[in-house]
Formats: sequence, structure tokens, C-alpha cells
Amino acid sequence: MEHSAQFNKSIKIVSIKSLVFSTETSTSYVEMTPLKPLSLSAFTLCMRVATELSGEREVILFAYRTREYDELNVWRELDGRLSFYLAGDGVLFSVPGLGPLESHLCVTWDSSSGASAFFMNGRKSVAKIYKKGHTTRPEGKVLLGQDPDSYVGEFDAKQSFVGEISDLNMWDYVLSDTTIKDMASGKRVTTGNIFDWESTRLHIHGAVDVVKREL
Amino acid sequence: MEHSAQFNKSIKIVSIKSLVFSTETSTSYVEMTPLKPLSLSAFTLCMRVATELSGEREVILFAYRTREYDELNVWRELDGRLSFYLAGDGVLFSVPGLGPLESHLCVTWDSSSGASAFFMNGRKSVAKIYKKGHTTRPEGKVLLGQDPDSYVGEFDAKQSFVGEISDLNMWDYVLSDTTIKDMASGKRVTTGNIFDWESTRLHIHGAVDVVKREL
Amino acid sequence: MEHSAQFNKSIKIVSIKSLVFSTETSTSYVEMTPLKPLSLSAFTLCMRVATELSGEREVILFAYRTREYDELNVWRELDGRLSFYLAGDGVLFSVPGLGPLESHLCVTWDSSSGASAFFMNGRKSVAKIYKKGHTTRPEGKVLLGQDPDSYVGEFDAKQSFVGEISDLNMWDYVLSDTTIKDMASGKRVTTGNIFDWESTRLHIHGAVDVVKREL
Repeated sequence: MEHSAQFNKSIKIVSIKSLVFSTETSTSYVEMTPLKPLSLSAFTLCMRVATELSGEREVILFAYRTREYDELNVWRELDGRLSFYLAGDGVLFSVPGLGPLESHLCVTWDSSSGASAFFMNGRKSVAKIYKKGHTTRPEGKVLLGQDPDSYVGEFDAKQSFVGEISDLNMWDYVLSDTTIKDMASGKRVTTGNIFDWESTRLHIHGAVDVVKREL
Repeated sequence: MEHSAQFNKSIKIVSIKSLVFSTETSTSYVEMTPLKPLSLSAFTLCMRVATELSGEREVILFAYRTREYDELNVWRELDGRLSFYLAGDGVLFSVPGLGPLESHLCVTWDSSSGASAFFMNGRKSVAKIYKKGHTTRPEGKVLLGQDPDSYVGEFDAKQSFVGEISDLNMWDYVLSDTTIKDMASGKRVTTGNIFDWESTRLHIHGAVDVVKREL
Repeated sequence: MEHSAQFNKSIKIVSIKSLVFSTETSTSYVEMTPLKPLSLSAFTLCMRVATELSGEREVILFAYRTREYDELNVWRELDGRLSFYLAGDGVLFSVPGLGPLESHLCVTWDSSSGASAFFMNGRKSVAKIYKKGHTTRPEGKVLLGQDPDSYVGEFDAKQSFVGEISDLNMWDYVLSDTTIKDMASGKRVTTGNIFDWESTRLHIHGAVDVVKREL
């Protein structure tokens, strides 16, 4: 009994949802409702992601679109690089590719300096200066699984996400490198103030399975 | 003196058995006796495994068969992917291949959601939905080293295991990701309630060496 | 409130500058002012560095030159090896290459034994004996980003640094392996007595962005 109590104390288990996109479709996606408007002059976006997609294939990882614009898209590019786009041309990073074993992925951006970076399993990429002074527009939709070419619609199966996404959190500021490293190694040090995966509501459309996993 | 005692306390050495299958045969295998019947609606199966087999070669990693059915088989497929089969068609995972350096391998499955995944050295694969609602049948035999095409018999050397297997544990529930990561990094946080490698009885048939190793 | 205080206490955040060299130039560089003259019979030089440069390309990582001599240059060589040069022929180390995800890099040298080594993310290279009895000359200039072929001038774009450098510290003695390992894993155990990145003055020339990052 005491041993068991000891055991439960030292390993705190957190149960979270995980999204499984099993097949390539132009119809399956998940919409997420943010805790505050996405009028952002800085952000940190993190997720755990695994995919068996390989070869020359674009993969959408996160899409935020208002009626008129793609406000914030995160992609794996055709050549395997990771990128994000704020309303126009994007910025690409030669970060070793996503793969079939789960990666902890973050992207950070700060409008005041334009500094942006990817973090793969806690390791930071080269910083790149991108869209200094820009602010994203609020009142759009956040989708996982598909890239909308209009306001929630016109999906292209060849850009869809296939694999598993979980533990997506988003903040309206830039987290410290140490905090990101701690999260990558499994410590639950903070949850997002725009998206908090443990409490966020997921609106499932099409063939997306929601499974539970224990971290 | 005190320093030494301190040292011994912090590094606990566990001595376990390890199975060495030195050559390709259709006759060598090890039978394991479970602690409870394998009537499973969920499981976690872990082992440490190394093999110099390479190229296009099926390799059986774990076989549980009742008189009529292959209930649970774990394979490395011809193309290097890992897979498992519950009484019929299986589910395949593009997990980087087993090799000559020892890997810590786990597979998890939960009937209620159908969620299944492989873990390679603590890193989780894409989850896949498989055999939701299924339960395995009890009163079969568990074999390592050979795939029985009948109830313990009709072995095919070209599917046999060659290499080393140790520290195989099995649970009738799904362990948390953190627990699996801890085991992969060498922490002895829990042992199986179906197979507990430190106490399990091994019935050796043919040319299988049992060696001791210290973890 | 208390939770927040707790949180801030356990994760001490250090804010530092980071240098981003976005494009290949023969004009952009940063000059650093040392805290004491670089008349050195031993040193440890550490930095965090990431670069997307790949293929056959020399990359200057650190240059200290007096009017007449290249006193201390650290390079990535054409073939990817790391090296340093003390006024003449250098010493090369087959250390796995710098890349697009940030590495913590140190180089140590001690004149009395001639022992020198690189450390990549806390892992030590083979030691090599180099320039026993040598001392570097003081009163030169320290540059990041370019290799001067004269006293601050004659830069070659094909040797320039492109990427990000931060957290550069230098000591006039050899740090212990454990201290270097601790720094690589993010602990702020010591800062340099020749260059202390948290307080050093950076003189920017050309297109170098200075961004803030939180460790």
C-alpha cells in the first residue's frame, strides 16, 4: 500500500486526448476554439506530432484563417523543411524531418524583433528574422488536418495531415528555451493561454479518431 | 564507508536472464508460462531485443496461439516495419528498424478505443486504430523464437528469431508514456502482471542459450 | 499568486542576446571587447551555434587577430570537421557536424600539456596535443562572422558565418568536463572571465540582427 502511494506520488500521470488522422482525405479536420482572440504580436505554438507520410509531400500542421487571409499556417514543405506563413510569404527552416516516431515541435515568433525559431524535441533551430512589426488578425478559424483555401473549405487531400497530433498548446508570448526543453522532456510546467490542450474543445469533422493517452 | 553505502543505494543493479538464439533453426524456441490467462482487452508488451538479421526477412518477435488461432503475433515484416496481429489481419507501423544494437520495444493496445502504438526506445509511434471491441482468447501457448502455424509446431526457419531477447514484461493494461520512457531509460518502475521477466519460468527447446546480464 | 511564485522560483529565466547572420556577406561582423588581454596560456571557449550552411563550405566561428597574426581562429572545415589554429598550422577534430539545430560547442587548450579538445553538447572529443608551451599575443581584435586576412579587413564571403551565435563565454583556464556538461544542459554554473556573454558589449557592423532569447 505504502509502496503504491509512493509510486503514484513520484510519477504524476496526465491523461490527454490525441487526434488520429488515419487516411488521406479532403474532408476530415478538427476545429479548435481559442481561449482569446488571435490578435497576436507574438506566440509560441507547440504540439506532439507523428506521421508516416514521407517523400515529396506537403503536410499542413496548423491553419488559422480569417475570411480573407491565411493568417498563420505551419507546414512541412515538399522537401521536408518546416515553415510557417503569416499572411503571405513564409519562412523556412532546415530542421530534421518529422517522422513516424513522435516529435515535440514548437514554433516561436515575436513581432517586436521579428525573431522566429523552431524547436525539435527541445533543440532550437537557427533564429530567423521574419515579419517585424506584423500582427495577426482575430476572428478566424483554427483547423487541424486541412489547409483551407477559403474560409473553412476547398481542402486539398494532397496537403492534408495523416498521422497523430496531440498536446497542442499555444501562448500569446514567447516561452523561454528552458521551458520548451522541459516540456519536450515530458514535464508539465505550463499550459497555453490561447489553446490549453487539457481543456480545449475539439470539434471533429469526418474520419478523425480521438483516443486517450497517458503522459 | 558511508559514501560507498550511498553509492550502492543510488545504483541498484538488477541481474536478469537473457535469451540468445545464435542460429537460424526451425526447432529452437522458448515457451513462457503466464501469471494469468491471456483473455485480454488491453495490453502492454515490452522487451529488449537485438538482432543482426537484415535485408528482406520476416522475424517473429512474440507468438501467442490457441489451438485454432494465432491470437497475438508481433513481427518485423519483410520491409523492416513492425507489426502485430490479433487473430487475422494485422496493423503495421513505419518504425525505424530493429538492429544489432539493443532496442527497448513496447507495443500497446486498448480494445475500448482500438488505440495501438509501438514505442522504440521510449519514443512513441503514430497511434493506429485497430480491432476495437476485440478480446483475445485464453488457454494458448506463448512462444519466443518461432511462429507456430499449428498449436506449437510447423515452424519455418525463415521466420525464426535470431539474436537476443531479454526483459520481456507484459501487462493486461496500457502503461503511461512516461512509464514506458522510464523503463526504456533503464528505470525499474514496474514489472508485468502477465509476464514478469525477473520471476518468469522459461522452458527452453533446442539451441537457445540463457545468459545472465546485469542491468 | 503563490503558484506563480513557486513557478518562477523553480525555473530561473535568463535573458540573453543572440546574433543572427541571415545572409552570406563579406561585410557583416560583430566585434567583441574582452574583459582582459588575450595573453593566454590556456583557455576554454564556449558558444551556442546553429547554421543551415551545409556541403563543402568553410565557416569561421571565432577569430582573434593581432596586427601581424591570426592568433586564434575556430573553424568548421570544408569536410565538416571542427578545428582551431594558434598562429600557424591548426589541429582538426572529427566531431559530428554543426547543423541547423543549435549545438553547445566548447574548445579547450592548455599550454603546459598541450592538451586540447572539443566538446559537442557536453560530449568530449578525443584529446589532441597541440602547441605545447605556446602563448597567444594580446592587443588584437575578436570578431564573429568574418575571418580577417588583415587586421579587421579583407573578408571572404565564402568563409563567413551564416546562422545564429549566442551565449559565447571564454575563460583563461580549462573548465572541468562536468562544468562543460552542466552548461550544455542549460545550467548557468559559471560565466567567462574573458568574455561574459550576459554583460559583454557587442559592436555590430553590417547586417547582423540582435534578438533576445530566454534560456
